[in-house]
Amino acid sequence: MLDRWLGSVAAAGRDLLRSRGWVNKDGKTALSLAELCEQLLSSRGEALGTAIASAVVERCKEFDDEQREAFFSLLLEGYGVDSTALDTAIANYQNEPGAAARDRLNAATEAPRQELFRRINMAPDGTRTLVALRAELLRSLRRRPELKEVDSDLRHLLGSWFNRGFLRLTAIDWKTPAHILEKLIAYEAVHAMNGWDDLRRRLAADRRCFAFFHPAIDDEPLIFVQVALCRGMATSVQTLLEEPIDSSAEQHADTAIFYSISDCQRGLKGVTLGNFLIKQVVLELQRELPNLSQFATLSPIPGLVGWLQENRDSIEPSGDDSDAVLALLDEIASGGEQDAAWQRLEQSGGQPLVERLAAHYLYRAKRGQQPFDPVARFHLRNGAGIEQVDTLGDTSAKGRSQSLGAMVNYRYRLENVERNHEAFVSEQQIVTERPFNRQLERVKRR
Amino acid sequence: MLDRWLGSVAAAGRDLLRSRGWVNKDGKTALSLAELCEQLLSSRGEALGTAIASAVVERCKEFDDEQREAFFSLLLEGYGVDSTALDTAIANYQNEPGAAARDRLNAATEAPRQELFRRINMAPDGTRTLVALRAELLRSLRRRPELKEVDSDLRHLLGSWFNRGFLRLTAIDWKTPAHILEKLIAYEAVHAMNGWDDLRRRLAADRRCFAFFHPAIDDEPLIFVQVALCRGMATSVQTLLEEPIDSSAEQHADTAIFYSISDCQRGLKGVTLGNFLIKQVVLELQRELPNLSQFATLSPIPGLVGWLQENRDSIEPSGDDSDAVLALLDEIASGGEQDAAWQRLEQSGGQPLVERLAAHYLYRAKRGQQPFDPVARFHLRNGAGIEQVDTLGDTSAKGRSQSLGAMVNYRYRLENVERNHEAFVSEQQIVTERPFNRQLERVKRR
Amino acid sequence: MLDRWLGSVAAAGRDLLRSRGWVNKDGKTALSLAELCEQLLSSRGEALGTAIASAVVERCKEFDDEQREAFFSLLLEGYGVDSTALDTAIANYQNEPGAAARDRLNAATEAPRQELFRRINMAPDGTRTLVALRAELLRSLRRRPELKEVDSDLRHLLGSWFNRGFLRLTAIDWKTPAHILEKLIAYEAVHAMNGWDDLRRRLAADRRCFAFFHPAIDDEPLIFVQVALCRGMATSVQTLLEEPIDSSAEQHADTAIFYSISDCQRGLKGVTLGNFLIKQVVLELQRELPNLSQFATLSPIPGLVGWLQENRDSIEPSGDDSDAVLALLDEIASGGEQDAAWQRLEQSGGQPLVERLAAHYLYRAKRGQQPFDPVARFHLRNGAGIEQVDTLGDTSAKGRSQSLGAMVNYRYRLENVERNHEAFVSEQQIVTERPFNRQLERVKRR
Amino acid sequence: MLDRWLGSVAAAGRDLLRSRGWVNKDGKTALSLAELCEQLLSSRGEALGTAIASAVVERCKEFDDEQREAFFSLLLEGYGVDSTALDTAIANYQNEPGAAARDRLNAATEAPRQELFRRINMAPDGTRTLVALRAELLRSLRRRPELKEVDSDLRHLLGSWFNRGFLRLTAIDWKTPAHILEKLIAYEAVHAMNGWDDLRRRLAADRRCFAFFHPAIDDEPLIFVQVALCRGMATSVQTLLEEPIDSSAEQHADTAIFYSISDCQRGLKGVTLGNFLIKQVVLELQRELPNLSQFATLSPIPGLVGWLQENRDSIEPSGDDSDAVLALLDEIASGGEQDAAWQRLEQSGGQPLVERLAAHYLYRAKRGQQPFDPVARFHLRNGAGIEQVDTLGDTSAKGRSQSLGAMVNYRYRLENVERNHEAFVSEQQIVTERPFNRQLERVKRR
Repeated sequence: MLDRWLGSVAAAGRDLLRSRGWVNKDGKTALSLAELCEQLLSSRGEALGTAIASAVVERCKEFDDEQREAFFSLLLEGYGVDSTALDTAIANYQNEPGAAARDRLNAATEAPRQELFRRINMAPDGTRTLVALRAELLRSLRRRPELKEVDSDLRHLLGSWFNRGFLRLTAIDWKTPAHILEKLIAYEAVHAMNGWDDLRRRLAADRRCFAFFHPAIDDEPLIFVQVALCRGMATSVQTLLEEPIDSSAEQHADTAIFYSISDCQRGLKGVTLGNFLIKQVVLELQRELPNLSQFATLSPIPGLVGWLQENRDSIEPSGDDSDAVLALLDEIASGGEQDAAWQRLEQSGGQPLVERLAAHYLYRAKRGQQPFDPVARFHLRNGAGIEQVDTLGDTSAKGRSQSLGAMVNYRYRLENVERNHEAFVSEQQIVTERPFNRQLERVKRR
Repeated sequence: MLDRWLGSVAAAGRDLLRSRGWVNKDGKTALSLAELCEQLLSSRGEALGTAIASAVVERCKEFDDEQREAFFSLLLEGYGVDSTALDTAIANYQNEPGAAARDRLNAATEAPRQELFRRINMAPDGTRTLVALRAELLRSLRRRPELKEVDSDLRHLLGSWFNRGFLRLTAIDWKTPAHILEKLIAYEAVHAMNGWDDLRRRLAADRRCFAFFHPAIDDEPLIFVQVALCRGMATSVQTLLEEPIDSSAEQHADTAIFYSISDCQRGLKGVTLGNFLIKQVVLELQRELPNLSQFATLSPIPGLVGWLQENRDSIEPSGDDSDAVLALLDEIASGGEQDAAWQRLEQSGGQPLVERLAAHYLYRAKRGQQPFDPVARFHLRNGAGIEQVDTLGDTSAKGRSQSLGAMVNYRYRLENVERNHEAFVSEQQIVTERPFNRQLERVKRR
Repeated sequence: MLDRWLGSVAAAGRDLLRSRGWVNKDGKTALSLAELCEQLLSSRGEALGTAIASAVVERCKEFDDEQREAFFSLLLEGYGVDSTALDTAIANYQNEPGAAARDRLNAATEAPRQELFRRINMAPDGTRTLVALRAELLRSLRRRPELKEVDSDLRHLLGSWFNRGFLRLTAIDWKTPAHILEKLIAYEAVHAMNGWDDLRRRLAADRRCFAFFHPAIDDEPLIFVQVALCRGMATSVQTLLEEPIDSSAEQHADTAIFYSISDCQRGLKGVTLGNFLIKQVVLELQRELPNLSQFATLSPIPGLVGWLQENRDSIEPSGDDSDAVLALLDEIASGGEQDAAWQRLEQSGGQPLVERLAAHYLYRAKRGQQPFDPVARFHLRNGAGIEQVDTLGDTSAKGRSQSLGAMVNYRYRLENVERNHEAFVSEQQIVTERPFNRQLERVKRR
Repeated sequence: MLDRWLGSVAAAGRDLLRSRGWVNKDGKTALSLAELCEQLLSSRGEALGTAIASAVVERCKEFDDEQREAFFSLLLEGYGVDSTALDTAIANYQNEPGAAARDRLNAATEAPRQELFRRINMAPDGTRTLVALRAELLRSLRRRPELKEVDSDLRHLLGSWFNRGFLRLTAIDWKTPAHILEKLIAYEAVHAMNGWDDLRRRLAADRRCFAFFHPAIDDEPLIFVQVALCRGMATSVQTLLEEPIDSSAEQHADTAIFYSISDCQRGLKGVTLGNFLIKQVVLELQRELPNLSQFATLSPIPGLVGWLQENRDSIEPSGDDSDAVLALLDEIASGGEQDAAWQRLEQSGGQPLVERLAAHYLYRAKRGQQPFDPVARFHLRNGAGIEQVDTLGDTSAKGRSQSLGAMVNYRYRLENVERNHEAFVSEQQIVTERPFNRQLERVKRR
């Protein structure tokens, strides 16, 4: 593939701009970004269009904060829907309703910035730049909610371009080029990697890693999942991360544990990728290793402690254990050193209580009609069921302070995934597996 | 890349359909195509969605003519814009104009078939199927003009998916896999290839071939161009196709002749690809072979004879030569054997007249404000200039009967291409090179 | 891989030669081939060595017959063992036997042409040139048996370089680059291919093709085998070559038929490749298609008619059928048109006799202690057993005139291959399968 | 390429061994290594041969020291030349001298272990195992000089298999698979790499790295060279290793500095690779970056201090500087902390003296007729000239204690390399460049 032509196009484009007097002596474009955008939308020639688009992309890459915010304002105010034109289009449609008038009405309801984005996408690195731009836009959005409509347009286009039919599932291993691997280290969001040795262990013979790529950004994973090949369910992430390599796992493993799923591109937030990934990886693993009979995650419970802080009365007073839990919650709330409180909890035999609290939380705590826990929402909506709560599943500082050290397995049974998904979406039904049912019963009995 | 997962997804999807009782004993889907489409649009689960999409794709591949037309009718009538809903959306917008109401209005102006197409695109082979479907749709359109709005929606989506940023320019040579090469033979539209020996000669050391590919249809070229490396301008396509291989052309060639450009996918008609291709190939050739200083086509003049038939008075009576031309035109019109008339033309010394007629035609004959000749329109719009008319450029039967054997070179000067393009588009200005100017003068002088 | 450096080395080498005044104005080397060889052996610098080696290679490629024979003479007379030096080395060893003297004796017994060949091998295209040279040498050898010692040295080196550990088994299909595929057409030795359509059918979904490659000649297969996936044993090569593609063969085939094995490089004669190939392909097919339970060839019996001509009395007079066979043999011997004789054989019901003759021939006819038939020798030595004679297996003109239309299946049972091989080699034991045993019994009964 | 067949062959081979009762219940081979070798040499079947070879390879991989030494003894005593047979072959030759007798004499002078090694090489991983074995053999050789003849045989075969025509020059960069890159870190012998960040910097846009690979060991570089793109000669390795990335070096660099060459395979000692590498990399760089006009090393002077310790009188008493140098030499000799002595040298203005000593040493110090310094021997033999001594070129502890901090540039002028090489080899002539000549003059003047 002749990817280098992109460079040639950019170089030729610069000559074109120069021939128009649009390039300064220092090699920078003489036009303002607003002028560039105007030229880009009005230009009908492709080579010039590409050249201007490249100049816009170049400008975007060099933005300081102020310039970026000014560009967002330009997109919002200069490239929104023209209300007068829309009113005219409505009037025309009402006068003479028909396909043509409807098409013009449709066009009038689309903000011109969509076409602007499409043209920027023609430049070398255009797609990448737009994804990066949206990451920044999402950040600005918190302070400037009016940018929502800009974001909506951009997300719409990205959703179309990152259509699932264009994504490529790729197995990652230690033979993968280093410039891809270093991005795994950078993007791992769940259980941080301490450099290359750590990465190497996670790509050993008893592990698997899969990522989605898009052809237009072929050196950047979009999302990746890390899998451990185990015998039986994995219940502790520390054990899993630290255990020695089991070089015969391919022969005797019966369970695949998805222990980390990381989105890599903040700019693709809201463009669904993760649910496709897990199910396709299950299919791929079934094909490669027919001995596997269970597929499950080992997942954090990120909302547990926050919810308990707000719902302390759900902790029924039961003795040492409940006292210890409450003391630990206090310590976490105060941001203090938690080691002593944690040890007290361990000594109090408090893990059964933690298990009950986590089970209760996962099954009953709601935000609206949805589960309170965001990770639970993701997997349950995705068609998984709750397999079991794993106390002491993550005893790191992070694990203690977000979930009292507990984790949870979500089970993926491919044959039920669709049914579970629909039951969850339409009836808010949470599917549970036998071990979790037993844990739930202990909650009820009390 | 794990492309095989597509197969796995399809297989798993079939199990899902089976679990719903939607698969007959013979393995075929039990639902009608209309029911499948309904399920596809309403389904929220991805795996099931993919499975249904695959079933739709499967159905499309097996269409007989009647079924296909019925599907087009379904798309037209069942998945068009809902006028009532649109009226409501207009009313709502007029009551409370704002971004939200406008978004809903935008949604109401979009035919649901667009979403249907998007979901079909999720299936393995989805993109390919939709491109093939549009090829059939264009054929039906001649008889059923009402399908135009279906086509418009499909073309809109294909235009977005075949965005230039996603196309890959690829050099084709004799080391290219055979399953790609056989498609060049099949798709060559300008100067037919007689099998593999002919292809091999066109991929020899003094030739180049480039194609655009799209990642979702990676075994099918979208469009390709064939280039000959020459010394000086090429003026006869027979010479060019038959000359022995010049194995040192890379060293001494100064001119690249684009002698054939073939669109491969009828279903992408109207999705601009060709103009990008030529200019990028010029850039690529400049990079590879810095000795090249001229880039030009050797192009047919497909409309010349037809136009002369309609404009016989443009052939001023000048003696033997004009008589011979008129006699040949008669022969062509009658569909008779042209050899005798052709020989008479040759003996009459009629080529200067043919040259004048072709020059006049290319420069003056119009359809509206545009050049009458479709190939001229393409290259002039693309930013090329007319270099010269080549009499006896194509002496094949096809060449004689469409253009009295004449061809034409269009010259691409990359540094002027943009300016030419804009002058052509905004002022209908036709750029000409010195040799053609001299040919034109001979027209005027008479 | 930077294979282009080979070109750079050659270019730089030419400069080196030029700097010594060894290049003429026309760019050709000024030295004679004999002088080049002398310089090559004496040169200690690598770049110069490579340059001279390249000049030798260039010279070899342009040889006319006379020059080639002169070069063979040079290799024979100028680069043989030096008898005087050898006598000295023997004397030294006998005076003081030890490792050092033995090494010098070993060196003195090796003809200097071996080192010359090693140095030629350093040039770009060196290996390829030496293989081509040996092909010519083998041809000359018939007239000039004294060249045998040159051949012996060259073959020794090629044997070491084409060591099995360096060969790569590669699957060939319709996605293989065309410049490789065209060589299959050229090299197919058993059942000729009629161009690309024929090749394409042989690479369809119900066929397999595998080849060995060597890294130093990576665009040339060394040997390849063609396989048909069948249900049950294939007994007719015409059926096999002409039957329509069975696109579900991968699912239901239980037998892999090796119907053609072609050596591609005459220059590698005597360097064992074929026996490795078949067994590795069996292993590869078992892995890919676990449903396969039988592996067998469909092989010609090239020596049958020749042997029958010499052993006519083995055809016991039995009536019409034996008369018809004898008449056909006469027709073949006379080189006349065989159609009438063939039809007479068919009408006489002579196939049972042909079967008996072929069975007798395969099992009993000998050359020394070995089977008379060369193909039988190859497969039996290789560890196969005789499965059955297939009358009317090859009814082409070639098939009729070499084996009265009969073919034979050799069965490969991987678990027995070693034992069969050793039994054959040490005790001349021919392994037979049950169907062939029954055919043999019919021979005996008469 | 179907490399997995190697695994299949090994698996099938095990079945063969099992069928002979040569495999224990624990899956290990029942035969002793001596028995395996005997079987391997006597076996005529290829599959069995491969199986036995694999068993030998497996055994070699698991050797403890004692087993390995025992194997070396077996190779020495059990597979050496048979003197009696050799005497017979000599007698036969003397009776009837001719090609056949000479061939048999040649065979009788070759130790059977050569054939044993060839057969081991047929196993999967055979080549790799033999290279590893030789690395161990070289270690043993120091204590057991009698093994020299085993080594000589092994080296002979490796020299033939690692023939330059089979090596592949490969550019290494940050897109190279990680399992190759980690080997660069492990094998870097000159300036140690501190992990992946360090490696990444050495593969940045202003650096190049090239390696030779062999097809039979395709995941192991054999030797690699690291290059810095600079303006002007580089004179300090610390500067070079620590300077920030110059991302525009490709445009403006005029000098390529080879600052590190590392052999990766101890087992290939004596098999010439390095000299090819440098010259081919020069050619490759010239092609990629035509602006480069100088090619030179920045090399250590590993023997300087050792030689000065032995030749203290070469340090003429000249004041503070010579006192400081002598004091530093004392400190180095005593193995003490050198910081104070080093600082004294710096304060004494002793660098001009160091320069003179290094220049004298490089040009005059000899071992036999060759330069005393091993790195100087390598590059001068290779055709380079001495460009200049760089005082303070390597101020690391290693640099101080081996060369008083000095380094040296060797200049490669491709057009002179051959002539220099021959002048060096035949007349021991050391080529010097102008800057070094001036440095030498300062030595003389004193």
